[in-house]
Amino acid sequence: MTRLPDLKGPELRARETTLDRELSLYSANRLALDLSRGKPAPAQLDLSHGLEQQLNDNYKSASGIDTRNYGNLRGIDEARDLGGQLLGIPAANVIAGGNSSLFLMHLVTSTAMSQGVWGDDRRWSTTAKVKVLTPVPGYDRHFTLCDALGIGMINVQMNEHGPDMDEVEALVAADPSIKGIWCVPKYSNPTGCVYSNETVERCAKLPAHAAADDFLVFWDNEYGVHDFVYPAETLADILSLSKTAGTQDHIALFASTSKITFSGGGVSFVGGSENFLNAIEKALSVMMVGPDKVNQLRHSRFLAGRLDQHMLRHAEILKPKFDIVDQILQTELAPLGIATWTRPKGGYFVSLDVLPGTAAETVRLAKTTGLTLTPAGATFPGGKDPMDSNIRIAPTFATTEEITTAMEVLVLCVKLTSVRKLLKDQTA
Amino acid sequence: MTRLPDLKGPELRARETTLDRELSLYSANRLALDLSRGKPAPAQLDLSHGLEQQLNDNYKSASGIDTRNYGNLRGIDEARDLGGQLLGIPAANVIAGGNSSLFLMHLVTSTAMSQGVWGDDRRWSTTAKVKVLTPVPGYDRHFTLCDALGIGMINVQMNEHGPDMDEVEALVAADPSIKGIWCVPKYSNPTGCVYSNETVERCAKLPAHAAADDFLVFWDNEYGVHDFVYPAETLADILSLSKTAGTQDHIALFASTSKITFSGGGVSFVGGSENFLNAIEKALSVMMVGPDKVNQLRHSRFLAGRLDQHMLRHAEILKPKFDIVDQILQTELAPLGIATWTRPKGGYFVSLDVLPGTAAETVRLAKTTGLTLTPAGATFPGGKDPMDSNIRIAPTFATTEEITTAMEVLVLCVKLTSVRKLLKDQTA
Repeated sequence: MTRLPDLKGPELRARETTLDRELSLYSANRLALDLSRGKPAPAQLDLSHGLEQQLNDNYKSASGIDTRNYGNLRGIDEARDLGGQLLGIPAANVIAGGNSSLFLMHLVTSTAMSQGVWGDDRRWSTTAKVKVLTPVPGYDRHFTLCDALGIGMINVQMNEHGPDMDEVEALVAADPSIKGIWCVPKYSNPTGCVYSNETVERCAKLPAHAAADDFLVFWDNEYGVHDFVYPAETLADILSLSKTAGTQDHIALFASTSKITFSGGGVSFVGGSENFLNAIEKALSVMMVGPDKVNQLRHSRFLAGRLDQHMLRHAEILKPKFDIVDQILQTELAPLGIATWTRPKGGYFVSLDVLPGTAAETVRLAKTTGLTLTPAGATFPGGKDPMDSNIRIAPTFATTEEITTAMEVLVLCVKLTSVRKLLKDQTA
Repeated sequence: MTRLPDLKGPELRARETTLDRELSLYSANRLALDLSRGKPAPAQLDLSHGLEQQLNDNYKSASGIDTRNYGNLRGIDEARDLGGQLLGIPAANVIAGGNSSLFLMHLVTSTAMSQGVWGDDRRWSTTAKVKVLTPVPGYDRHFTLCDALGIGMINVQMNEHGPDMDEVEALVAADPSIKGIWCVPKYSNPTGCVYSNETVERCAKLPAHAAADDFLVFWDNEYGVHDFVYPAETLADILSLSKTAGTQDHIALFASTSKITFSGGGVSFVGGSENFLNAIEKALSVMMVGPDKVNQLRHSRFLAGRLDQHMLRHAEILKPKFDIVDQILQTELAPLGIATWTRPKGGYFVSLDVLPGTAAETVRLAKTTGLTLTPAGATFPGGKDPMDSNIRIAPTFATTEEITTAMEVLVLCVKLTSVRKLLKDQTA
């Protein structure tokens, strides 16, 4: 096949006609396909029905806490163990919370803003215009959270091994109003990249180089054990590295079981130094008496000693889905020179880059054909992709049959939109 | 028996010697008694073990929602029904949340402060020094929450039928920086009073009389179905009354199952008008994808059609405990003219008022004898009881044997401290 950008006008017009006809065959079928949300499939949720068989009228934690009653803001020990396992840090450095790690991220951010998380006078609210770095493409809920708290965002480029750390370090050293950076270090949302050892080490040292003395690295390790290609990717231990660098009070780690057990009914975790956890516990104490320890106990007992095996069963469900995505992209788009995409070894997303200026139109066209995709631009702060080229593919929830059809529609939409863009560029 | 205030010095000194000896007999026993926390007893928690038998691999809500997955910020319909039942309002006026109603109170307060809850420009943060009214004695966590958000508190007197509404109305009409009032309208913490119909109606109209146009009535109805004397007390429907008064966007209702099922693993609720719920849902959307719907489903199924029966079993456990408290206070203190106390028909507390200037010393003395009480002053903002006379008794968690001994110690401490105070006053 010829690369589309090499085709002349008449050839492109012929392609447009053919592609339009092909796509209309799908439109006629009134499809209702969805590759927009990073949700586990029902078959994955079924893997955790054993949760309900864990208590058997025994609600005592290993240390003798009655999980049914009030209290214990840091969570029960065995849940903190589980969080430590997910984050690759000691249980003592973990607070186990409720069902939402996003809540914990909001808590850390709003606490850094208002009371500070260092037990002293440092707090972001004393700075007129607080900003954080947002590696892009990234996770829209991080951006929404910052927006809601009035925090500005500065985009930095995501590369194969994490954010462009030269750019990150230069920005952070120059501007004391830059107070943090959002990182999804393993199977990043949406590119699926894993931060290299060098990147992790440079992230750990970042607070020491920052012009701000109240800098925070947000380490949202939601996909830390969510491998589906083995041997699994490894991630360096940022908390240990930060201790060496003396920056341990400036690292905030997050994880949850949302994509391990039940997305809506799991357990979340925040990790960091003892100083940091003290500040977070204090902030929590104002707004709750304790987390849902009963659910923590269910989870700890269910996953104890079998987390790896459990994640392997997730992988068995997920791997074929990601294979379909890659195979159809490879077959249909690779020869045409109009798109690139990531091939993650874990996580929940594939990041597809189409010709600049065609992502929004591709998503719109897919929608008219019955395929819902994540809105173009959603992977950038303010929903604005400056190149209009990034599309996030979330293939986990749909069945393999649905994914196959959805990807057939998607590649047709990419081709047709690309052809029209190339035609427009030629006549411009 | 003679009233202690009528005794002369030598008689008081004789009493002091006798009481001191009696108390020392208890001290010798190295007691470890606790009447400080409003926690359900293990036997009450046992009543809800059926929660774990509700799912049976069927995680679909009545409307077909897979509770295991993400989403549904307002909670599932059957959980909202349950919240409506607890609050006495339609399910449509309820959001069902996670395990903590205190979190929802914090959310409403911080949202009123920062973004407002009326979908317009009104927000408390535009006022230099925001204040709220705190009927006293009251609930310490309400005070701590306000403190943490920089909200000042103005005490108003709690009477038998709720706050002194003449005082409340006068304050609210005069000062636009007064933005709200905290109410525990049924079995108030700690007095156990139930707001009369007139008080509820005046509370409903309060936002219309307030100088502030962004006034909120915090209606923390935590004990709405927690009767232990029958026929149960009834509480007027503030939401209906507020609709009549046109103040419905200024009423925030709260409830939870924390003292119905598991204190640490229940479901919480916030209620109000559709405008109000929209604002709260928007605030929630920034910090979570949805509540723990699995736990909501457990609760809804477990309590559906049997809430009254379930609460009756709580009452069977609680009534004898409150009877012991009242009986010992009645026998030992009533004739002496040194204390008054409340006789609640539900809820979790008895409020004891001792001679002015003796509460802190009574609590201290009890502690040295091995009885932990809620710190004196805790029922007032800043921990400061201006009269130093209020002591909160929380008899739910302890066994009847422990309560009996604890109350014997408590009345001895009250007597001894009173005698010493009277002696001091006579020599002064």
